Amino acid sequence: MDEHIYIYIIIIPYYAIFVNGKICKDPKVVTADDFFKSSLNVAGNTSNNIGSAVTVVNVFNLPELNTLDISLVRIDYAPYGVNPPHMHPRGAEILVVLEGTLYVGFVLSNSGPNMKNKLFTKILHPRDVFVFPIGLIHFQFNVEKTKAVAFAGLSSQNPGVITITNAVFGSDPPINDDVLAKTFQVDKKVVDYLQSQFWWDNN
Amino acid sequence: MDEHIYIYIIIIPYYAIFVNGKICKDPKVVTADDFFKSSLNVAGNTSNNIGSAVTVVNVFNLPELNTLDISLVRIDYAPYGVNPPHMHPRGAEILVVLEGTLYVGFVLSNSGPNMKNKLFTKILHPRDVFVFPIGLIHFQFNVEKTKAVAFAGLSSQNPGVITITNAVFGSDPPINDDVLAKTFQVDKKVVDYLQSQFWWDNN
Amino acid sequence: MDEHIYIYIIIIPYYAIFVNGKICKDPKVVTADDFFKSSLNVAGNTSNNIGSAVTVVNVFNLPELNTLDISLVRIDYAPYGVNPPHMHPRGAEILVVLEGTLYVGFVLSNSGPNMKNKLFTKILHPRDVFVFPIGLIHFQFNVEKTKAVAFAGLSSQNPGVITITNAVFGSDPPINDDVLAKTFQVDKKVVDYLQSQFWWDNN
Amino acid sequence: MDEHIYIYIIIIPYYAIFVNGKICKDPKVVTADDFFKSSLNVAGNTSNNIGSAVTVVNVFNLPELNTLDISLVRIDYAPYGVNPPHMHPRGAEILVVLEGTLYVGFVLSNSGPNMKNKLFTKILHPRDVFVFPIGLIHFQFNVEKTKAVAFAGLSSQNPGVITITNAVFGSDPPINDDVLAKTFQVDKKVVDYLQSQFWWDNN
Amino acid sequence: MDEHIYIYIIIIPYYAIFVNGKICKDPKVVTADDFFKSSLNVAGNTSNNIGSAVTVVNVFNLPELNTLDISLVRIDYAPYGVNPPHMHPRGAEILVVLEGTLYVGFVLSNSGPNMKNKLFTKILHPRDVFVFPIGLIHFQFNVEKTKAVAFAGLSSQNPGVITITNAVFGSDPPINDDVLAKTFQVDKKVVDYLQSQFWWDNN
Amino acid sequence: MDEHIYIYIIIIPYYAIFVNGKICKDPKVVTADDFFKSSLNVAGNTSNNIGSAVTVVNVFNLPELNTLDISLVRIDYAPYGVNPPHMHPRGAEILVVLEGTLYVGFVLSNSGPNMKNKLFTKILHPRDVFVFPIGLIHFQFNVEKTKAVAFAGLSSQNPGVITITNAVFGSDPPINDDVLAKTFQVDKKVVDYLQSQFWWDNN
Repeated sequence: MDEHIYIYIIIIPYYAIFVNGKICKDPKVVTADDFFKSSLNVAGNTSNNIGSAVTVVNVFNLPELNTLDISLVRIDYAPYGVNPPHMHPRGAEILVVLEGTLYVGFVLSNSGPNMKNKLFTKILHPRDVFVFPIGLIHFQFNVEKTKAVAFAGLSSQNPGVITITNAVFGSDPPINDDVLAKTFQVDKKVVDYLQSQFWWDNN
Repeated sequence: MDEHIYIYIIIIPYYAIFVNGKICKDPKVVTADDFFKSSLNVAGNTSNNIGSAVTVVNVFNLPELNTLDISLVRIDYAPYGVNPPHMHPRGAEILVVLEGTLYVGFVLSNSGPNMKNKLFTKILHPRDVFVFPIGLIHFQFNVEKTKAVAFAGLSSQNPGVITITNAVFGSDPPINDDVLAKTFQVDKKVVDYLQSQFWWDNN
Repeated sequence: MDEHIYIYIIIIPYYAIFVNGKICKDPKVVTADDFFKSSLNVAGNTSNNIGSAVTVVNVFNLPELNTLDISLVRIDYAPYGVNPPHMHPRGAEILVVLEGTLYVGFVLSNSGPNMKNKLFTKILHPRDVFVFPIGLIHFQFNVEKTKAVAFAGLSSQNPGVITITNAVFGSDPPINDDVLAKTFQVDKKVVDYLQSQFWWDNN
Repeated sequence: MDEHIYIYIIIIPYYAIFVNGKICKDPKVVTADDFFKSSLNVAGNTSNNIGSAVTVVNVFNLPELNTLDISLVRIDYAPYGVNPPHMHPRGAEILVVLEGTLYVGFVLSNSGPNMKNKLFTKILHPRDVFVFPIGLIHFQFNVEKTKAVAFAGLSSQNPGVITITNAVFGSDPPINDDVLAKTFQVDKKVVDYLQSQFWWDNN
Repeated sequence: MDEHIYIYIIIIPYYAIFVNGKICKDPKVVTADDFFKSSLNVAGNTSNNIGSAVTVVNVFNLPELNTLDISLVRIDYAPYGVNPPHMHPRGAEILVVLEGTLYVGFVLSNSGPNMKNKLFTKILHPRDVFVFPIGLIHFQFNVEKTKAVAFAGLSSQNPGVITITNAVFGSDPPINDDVLAKTFQVDKKVVDYLQSQFWWDNN
Repeated sequence: MDEHIYIYIIIIPYYAIFVNGKICKDPKVVTADDFFKSSLNVAGNTSNNIGSAVTVVNVFNLPELNTLDISLVRIDYAPYGVNPPHMHPRGAEILVVLEGTLYVGFVLSNSGPNMKNKLFTKILHPRDVFVFPIGLIHFQFNVEKTKAVAFAGLSSQNPGVITITNAVFGSDPPINDDVLAKTFQVDKKVVDYLQSQFWWDNN
């Protein structure tokens, strides 16, 4: 029998620790700036074909969020811009509108009796709060000809985002069009057309 | 200020307990049958427009799965049938093919650098095993002109299922077509056409 | 004050469910309003001796937050108002300033080498973001002669709040003054004086 | 036995990540094969004194199961073979019979009133499903003179297995026989005899 | 069979809640006594055939431990008494000896390379501390002719206990002796003899 | 500023793993001593201005507690000594008195109606047990002129401790005295006096 011994040589600084797959800073050199982020004072660029931009503060750009189960986003909407149907596999979202008027909604799963794919929607005005449960497909739409701004907390340091169009029609490589034609009950040409589009990622 | 006092009158049997929102059986009357299910010995009916059927054993039909974080499904596929793109918000899935040949795949989220919406696919033969990570959009497609059968374990007593077409185009009531037209970058007529289709629920 | 008490007697059928100690609504009668709250569009009343007011949206006033591990607060500060040292036993906090200038800080625990009771502070301006780790004592102080407003997400549907002064000197009944005199290394008269004060609860 | 030792020296760059004590692959080099396993298409070797073999797909041989809380096993049984009393400290199990007839059972703990050490048993036929709760001692026994095959999902990427005989009589070094004689209320010679046996590990 | 069904009608006030399957007391009537237990000041009765007694303070007799993930036990040992091989499916244990000398040990699982069923043992004197990992089979044995006493904390409000002999040979009804004869590689008469013994439950 | 960077090169064998930010020992070289600690057989030194000493067995000095969610402390009290108001952000505590008479108590949070800052206290005698819920401020006070000893289990391998006086008045650097003067409703001189005291850390 053969035995494999793997020896890893890792250069690690004093006190460096791995928690949740991340190298933690030596606590002695941590400063208040490690808990601070100023990026949300600038509006995101909404000059794209969906008219929205999401600016995120999560564990990737504010590492001290590690283990804290929380992150924050700012969402900017152009007039009639949409934050298109998407879901966060690891986070519920609580959104507060700062500016403008939003039509928001989410769809239940197709489990459970009597409630399959039920849609809930609401028109929100400034300082209104709305909750999107974890893992459900949801969206926001700016119904006015002026820009809108919202902030939202998410219940994960890394909630993830799956934008439906981008995952289904914009995957790399593309999903076999036989699968999508049968799924969407359309001709393969329609699938091919959609797969040839550019799917903007607003995150 | 008004004060509301709610008084609940609940008729509960001796020892009845609520755990995870479910009434547990009095342990003294539990029998081995409470841990048993024979429904997976019958093929699901795949005579539908997507050509697949999912038979589930989860906490809704086998209540003793409560708190056990596991469930099991049998999936039957007609020739060229598809289990269309869907995701389970609360469960990873490990699938084993019993009969036939399946083209399977899943798509990553659009978080994280360099890997946005990356598609992973594989052709599976009998007794091959494949893993679908929690919360990601995935599918299986029977690539042969004979039927196929798979079994899968899921890491939740109630993993949930969100079928993309059903949630996006088959919600009740329908999502505002302005939102979907802007999202899919198509004319509202295309959205209206898709929303008028019947979206079969294979679960 | 005129007080009306409404008494409801509710017979709950066998399938009524308790999750996390809360009675869930029958999903069939849930509406979008159950996910909606408009209370954050009104400033809290900061006319109190500490000059701050916290308006919370948590599972107690928005029950559909149940199981979602998130809540939101609006904090209003009078000029030179303080949100006094406090901690949330069940929630980390991510705060964004909307208006004004805040001096914020938190103190580490006295566990671990070299970092005992280390204080981290920062001056925050509008749209700046700061994170307060779970379970640590923290505060915000309005350093200007104009009012300030902040919003914060917390990583719990019910994060709890322990305000140090209120718990230590304002408990009901009071803590034995021998204990506090020895703890604070002061004369019992000082303890008695502090225990006789009114400790405003800004939550 | 000829033993070859291969020594690999691996320099891990700063972004290499450890999650749950495992080194994650750089996501850029992950392929669909990392989610795939074909080992379950071969029957395990049941030519041993208990007449059973368990073939596992868990995080040790399919590393992408890391964090997914699920694994799968195939169990082969010789005629009258037994998968002897054992428990999984970290996993519930949902088993489906593919071939043959099994007598299965599990025993409750000795906590709780009126139910101490209660045994639940059932005869299972092909496609029957049975659940073994987490942490309880359970077994399967092939009651026919033909072979049997089952598949089972477990609610952990690494459920662990403690086979009672192997742990109690086959530990390394042996447990002091005074302890076991008093425990089993038998003569030390009986303990010594049992400790001298070879306890086959069918995993 | 005569069956009595007791139906209780319970008027539950506003606050009454079910958490973890338990009815919580109205917080307004909770007193310090709900957090207090005096039962550990009396030695357990060790006049039984294994010579040990475990007195537990857990959520069943101190309900305010609900959700607190901790419990405490006192273990009394007669001279040469044994707390026989057992495991706690939901709790690690940290034990401190108050009186006497104990030989303690635990056995690893048979998962993982090179460490299968490895036994760890230690002789403990007063005020020595030893840790038993969650889910592993462990025991304590009083090696002196004088009594011994230990206290232990467990990492669950309801850690559970599975005593190996009681579950395997003392189950109700007995496990089929074909299964146990094959398992223990002994004659069925030996199994029948063991199943006919009285297995004392020291908990 | 002079900056020293220490770079360590560590050769990690095959099995070395990082779990929870700690390097786990190679299981092949683990011995029973890794689960053993004798430090609790010596009384802590209570010759300090609060008259108490806490000796801890946690993951920092007994690394095999990693992932086990439990730790143990011994608390020694001089006559009239106090274990001053403090809280454990990550652990509930179950305490048993071995010697002496203690006045113990804890204070609820200021969330929830009707129960804000409610104090629960109790006089404890030897072998009495008391529970301190997670995250709440609590204390023990030796009410006799003889020494006292208690042991306590905590529901975390690293429960943490925040001593109120040390965090509020003894932080490094000190909290701005404007904040504390407004918080405690006292003159800044009082705050400055308290901040100039030496706050003993009894842990």
